[in-house]
Amino acid sequence: MYDHLKGFRDFYPGEMSARRETIDTVEATAERYGFREIGTPALERTQMYVDKSGEEIVEELYAFQDKGGRDVTLTPELTPTVARMVVAKSQELSKPIKWMSTRPFWRYEQVQQGRFREFYQTNVDIFGSAEPEADAEILAFAADAMTNLGLTADDFEFRVSHRDILGGLLEAFDADVDTRDAIRAVDKSAKIDREEYLALLTDAGLTWSQAEQFDDLLKSEDLDALVDFAGTERVEAAVTNLQNVLAVAEEFGVREYCTLSLETARGLDYYTGVVFECFDSTGEVSRAVFGGGRYDDLIESFGGQPTPAVGVAPGHAPLQLLCQRAGVWPEEALSTDYYLLTVGDTRDVAARIARELRATGNVVETDVADRSFGAQMGYADGINAETVVIVGEQDLANDEVTVKDMATGEQTTAPVDDFPGDRDAPTYDDFAE
Amino acid sequence: MYDHLKGFRDFYPGEMSARRETIDTVEATAERYGFREIGTPALERTQMYVDKSGEEIVEELYAFQDKGGRDVTLTPELTPTVARMVVAKSQELSKPIKWMSTRPFWRYEQVQQGRFREFYQTNVDIFGSAEPEADAEILAFAADAMTNLGLTADDFEFRVSHRDILGGLLEAFDADVDTRDAIRAVDKSAKIDREEYLALLTDAGLTWSQAEQFDDLLKSEDLDALVDFAGTERVEAAVTNLQNVLAVAEEFGVREYCTLSLETARGLDYYTGVVFECFDSTGEVSRAVFGGGRYDDLIESFGGQPTPAVGVAPGHAPLQLLCQRAGVWPEEALSTDYYLLTVGDTRDVAARIARELRATGNVVETDVADRSFGAQMGYADGINAETVVIVGEQDLANDEVTVKDMATGEQTTAPVDDFPGDRDAPTYDDFAE
Repeated sequence: MYDHLKGFRDFYPGEMSARRETIDTVEATAERYGFREIGTPALERTQMYVDKSGEEIVEELYAFQDKGGRDVTLTPELTPTVARMVVAKSQELSKPIKWMSTRPFWRYEQVQQGRFREFYQTNVDIFGSAEPEADAEILAFAADAMTNLGLTADDFEFRVSHRDILGGLLEAFDADVDTRDAIRAVDKSAKIDREEYLALLTDAGLTWSQAEQFDDLLKSEDLDALVDFAGTERVEAAVTNLQNVLAVAEEFGVREYCTLSLETARGLDYYTGVVFECFDSTGEVSRAVFGGGRYDDLIESFGGQPTPAVGVAPGHAPLQLLCQRAGVWPEEALSTDYYLLTVGDTRDVAARIARELRATGNVVETDVADRSFGAQMGYADGINAETVVIVGEQDLANDEVTVKDMATGEQTTAPVDDFPGDRDAPTYDDFAE
Repeated sequence: MYDHLKGFRDFYPGEMSARRETIDTVEATAERYGFREIGTPALERTQMYVDKSGEEIVEELYAFQDKGGRDVTLTPELTPTVARMVVAKSQELSKPIKWMSTRPFWRYEQVQQGRFREFYQTNVDIFGSAEPEADAEILAFAADAMTNLGLTADDFEFRVSHRDILGGLLEAFDADVDTRDAIRAVDKSAKIDREEYLALLTDAGLTWSQAEQFDDLLKSEDLDALVDFAGTERVEAAVTNLQNVLAVAEEFGVREYCTLSLETARGLDYYTGVVFECFDSTGEVSRAVFGGGRYDDLIESFGGQPTPAVGVAPGHAPLQLLCQRAGVWPEEALSTDYYLLTVGDTRDVAARIARELRATGNVVETDVADRSFGAQMGYADGINAETVVIVGEQDLANDEVTVKDMATGEQTTAPVDDFPGDRDAPTYDDFAE
């Protein structure tokens, strides 16, 4: 007997139907904002990830050589792929480009609750606008997706920050700071104790007292004080940009979901402006549910024209944890409109009825295993059939079928020639006296 | 600049929307038959494929060692995975099990028209019924999917055969035949000339004259003659089974799409009963579009209880070729219900209208790039917006917005407080005098 690989999951129909409903909700939300679906390959050249993130990234990837000797990688995220696609057709694509897609990604990493080696995300991105409206639209899409899933402002918050505030502040210290390392330290700060955090900041080039001051400044969340401290145009512009994004988010109706949180940094190196992470307001789901932000330099670094970009990628495993915690995860059950139960040689009539009911969009099962009345009824119950239509030889002799409401157990007869007739979805009630 | 790998494809929004429509149609057809969606991993242990198909299969696979030293493979087909999943939960799953899913698969093979290294299929399977109704339901689903795509009986045919007729006939010759090799020869027969075909049959153990006789028997398609020739219960039972499947297909309303074709064999080894391939009736798409059949032994060979099974897997690349040939491939274009065009500082009103229109399911874009009237109108045209709602400072001073029908170019004004009002999808016509 074979088993699935560690960190990979088999989804059986019950769980899958809940996942499908969730994915459909997130995608439908994106579609209504005019994000257009794209399709992308599972494999890319490993070099693309090495160029972007350095040789050490390969350790976390499913990287290998294909039969043609190419170094290839199972895509660990979508952003490099969409950047590549934007560059490849930048002349033809009218801006802003608004794309979305849902698919699995793969990382060879430690398996934890809500974190797998194969994981599904819906990626949503805007290319070609540096305006705060674009950042705010990403926040608005994400907030709408959450509320469309049944979550409320009591369930989640977006902690919003700005990479240029962090970078600009670090620059303002009289120190030779490795900004990348320092920002990675900020990204870790919530998960480690203060001493350890400050030590990481000193590793990145700050003195201990500078590290303390930096930490205090971020914690204060007093944007005016930050501008005064830095005294640079860079920090001033970043603060203005962050305030503008939040102002547009207000107009877009989603400001209430956003919290200013300068200690939010996002781990990935390519972010340049506003960044945000979604958290469970109760803290029960302890890690960030998902995150996103602005990455204005990536397209150019991939050989394209300078193209500002901003995006978000809800991951479906952490989203499931949050929905379950909040009690809004869809029921993991099958649903079936009709089961056509045949007794004796009545298959042709049952087939005709099944065909007509399917044509109006109903989910209809019928016997394909030559089973007894009881076995068929048990199966119909198991698939949660709402209505069972019994097509028996005796009923047919009277030109009738029996219509049974499975919730109440009530049943009645209907004229076979008038079933379903011109009804899209006939039920017991349509024929009961 | 990076490129995608050979045999892998990037799908941009226009083509993707046509693909999505096609996939949705095939999936909706399966859902209405009560096939339930499952989710499956992209990676499996390589050993599973070696056990099933022999060591040589590895040459065609994306097989590699992961960081933990496991021999793993990018799944080249779904059947072994679903067989594994059935075995893992065989006690809990009530039979018949009816599953479906759409996803990519990967094979390292020669890239041709309609054949890629990454290719998408919708797999549809029934486990737990040996009855002809199950085979016929698979044929009926497949035929309905085709007609739901707009294809007709003039466009495609299912060539139906039976593995046990082929195997039973071969057994009836006084020769030591390698059935697997002989059936592979039959599978190739349409693509090679007769001499070469007969030579392959002699390689498999028939004499030249036996090979000629075998070929004549298959070509005759006279099932009674086959039964007489073989004189075995096996061939008699197989012929009866094939006839029963076609009889049920008649009751299921899809017999017209089925042609008896004993020279159809399917390449894969695991088939045991009815097999079929879908062909373009015009022959313009020269290879089989897709195929399916019965594989009653696979679950047991995976360590499960004996479990009969039958399935089909439409591949979306060859299906696209057929739909394009038949002129029923969906238009590769974006569709947009509304573009909200802002002039001046009117974003808050535009955002309110956009939010209300999205809430009733419309696709609504608005400006996220701070662009001019002309640039916005050009963009709205590029995304095929049906209606443009112009929210201008001047109009707002009169408590109005302008509603423009993009097809006719006509425009009128509407009271801003009554737009959209209680209308789900207001158009120019709702406000024109």
